[in-house]
Amino acid sequence: MAPTLASSRFSARFGLATPIALAPMALASGGLLAAACSHAGALGLVGGGYGDLGWTQREYGLALEHGERERIGCGFIVWKLDEDASALDWVLEQRPRALMLSFGDPRPYAQRIARSGAVLVFQVQRLEQVPQALEAGAQVIVAQGGEAGGHGMDGLNGRATLAFVPELADWLAAHAPDTLLLAAGGVADGRTLAAVRLLGADGALVGSRLWATAESLAAPGAKQQALRTTGDGTARSSVFDILRRKNWPQPYDFRAIRNALHREWENRIDELRANPAAGRAAYDAGVQQGDFERAHATVGEAVGLVRDLPGAAEAIARMDRQARALLGD
Amino acid sequence: MAPTLASSRFSARFGLATPIALAPMALASGGLLAAACSHAGALGLVGGGYGDLGWTQREYGLALEHGERERIGCGFIVWKLDEDASALDWVLEQRPRALMLSFGDPRPYAQRIARSGAVLVFQVQRLEQVPQALEAGAQVIVAQGGEAGGHGMDGLNGRATLAFVPELADWLAAHAPDTLLLAAGGVADGRTLAAVRLLGADGALVGSRLWATAESLAAPGAKQQALRTTGDGTARSSVFDILRRKNWPQPYDFRAIRNALHREWENRIDELRANPAAGRAAYDAGVQQGDFERAHATVGEAVGLVRDLPGAAEAIARMDRQARALLGD
Repeated sequence: MAPTLASSRFSARFGLATPIALAPMALASGGLLAAACSHAGALGLVGGGYGDLGWTQREYGLALEHGERERIGCGFIVWKLDEDASALDWVLEQRPRALMLSFGDPRPYAQRIARSGAVLVFQVQRLEQVPQALEAGAQVIVAQGGEAGGHGMDGLNGRATLAFVPELADWLAAHAPDTLLLAAGGVADGRTLAAVRLLGADGALVGSRLWATAESLAAPGAKQQALRTTGDGTARSSVFDILRRKNWPQPYDFRAIRNALHREWENRIDELRANPAAGRAAYDAGVQQGDFERAHATVGEAVGLVRDLPGAAEAIARMDRQARALLGD
Repeated sequence: MAPTLASSRFSARFGLATPIALAPMALASGGLLAAACSHAGALGLVGGGYGDLGWTQREYGLALEHGERERIGCGFIVWKLDEDASALDWVLEQRPRALMLSFGDPRPYAQRIARSGAVLVFQVQRLEQVPQALEAGAQVIVAQGGEAGGHGMDGLNGRATLAFVPELADWLAAHAPDTLLLAAGGVADGRTLAAVRLLGADGALVGSRLWATAESLAAPGAKQQALRTTGDGTARSSVFDILRRKNWPQPYDFRAIRNALHREWENRIDELRANPAAGRAAYDAGVQQGDFERAHATVGEAVGLVRDLPGAAEAIARMDRQARALLGD
């Protein structure tokens, strides 16, 4: 039987109307966006990101207050949890439906997540990361391609979604057939959603399309910048991590709109790292002034498929409708 | 109507049994591989590559002798034609069905290709290259993602297939609706072929899967190395171009298996460029000895979907069969 949206194991296991999860984008996937996704029948993952306790309490609280609790969860960056896991511990006390981790070794967090009853969702960028995720008890693997916005693996080490997903689907079918697989990176309309179902994914983790919605906490100027940008207009590098004083470990870097400040430094990254003051001053001024030729706008290549800023429910409904038409649901 | 293989405009226009074109891989897509593809109902493009007249005459001659003339064509690298177009001129005298160009400005070659009656196929790595290709009379655009093996655009500038194809499909639908679109990069089985049909491509240009066939001219040791390599095991950089003394212009670089010699230099590319002698000696020895930890094996990330070395007809039949099952053909 050819895959459809209706036959998705991800929808069945999480009680979803459509096999979509909101990517837990730090500072964009706030409580009201996660709540809107949960009402639309998707899984709403709050962007716990770097693990700021106050931000997480406020936004996760909003998600619970306004959303459907059984479709609400949260995501965190593992190497930051290694420094301070208080936000994770607080979220686990709220009994989230799903807890998503990325960018580090999930095994130290396996026990407490299992005890909370949350489903562990782990995001990988390479096939070779999967055994460790399964050892940590991950029930859902997210295969993230380098076309995704935000953090991911650098160009030497990362994969692209199209060939990564079917290879990982085959691996799971052989080694862990009950583990679900989501595709992340490049999924922003019904065509790309339908495509990843045919590739063997049970559903998709959606970033840019839900970043560019009314409920997203992304800055209005960043959203407008995204509407003016084709998919040619993003790039992956360490530039914005250095400018933002984020001490990301190798081999991770960051995709965002390739604005004027990025272009200024993208071929001089060692120089920027050694002497970041001038770049940081320009970046900080850009943030203060809402100038997104200097401040960053965090979207992936799928921004080229984003042409408006609908509500999240409308964005999800369109993807679902178009994918069903293509898959003959 | 949801896309199927049977409804492909590419198949209809070229009289194909399945909407697949053999990527014109330099030194791998020889005459017998192109001929086998043409017999299997695909478009067989000989890898004219750097435009060596003797190689092209021999291999294109074999393709005509053994293949179906109406499904035989040839591909060339534009910036090399700018130095010496004698192989192109010779091929055009043979009245090829299709002439594929990549990596440069095709407009200087537009008139002579049009006069020959060949269909111009042009490969792009960014949306912004498309208007120039249409100005040159391209009737088929190939959207090449960075996951493809061999040459393509570097990490800062390249796109990935999944989001690139639907964005380009929308652009063509609005501006040049009779122009066909092929997807390249990551297509190596029926799932990925079906997926790119849903994304809006009329068909696919297939490299790695057809590189790893009995008829391919790739070295036997390289093919064996590919069978041992997952999709995690390739990388894109300038390393092998420098080692091979190929003077590729920016922003193009090269994806191949990330072997020991690649790893040795991949983080010291400026040093290698400035002082290539030791690296080149190691590379040359690897080629002489058939040691593919030093010599290069040119495949893309889709090598992770390649697990055997069938004949080209069998490889194409499998892709076609699996894609039809998924698309309900």
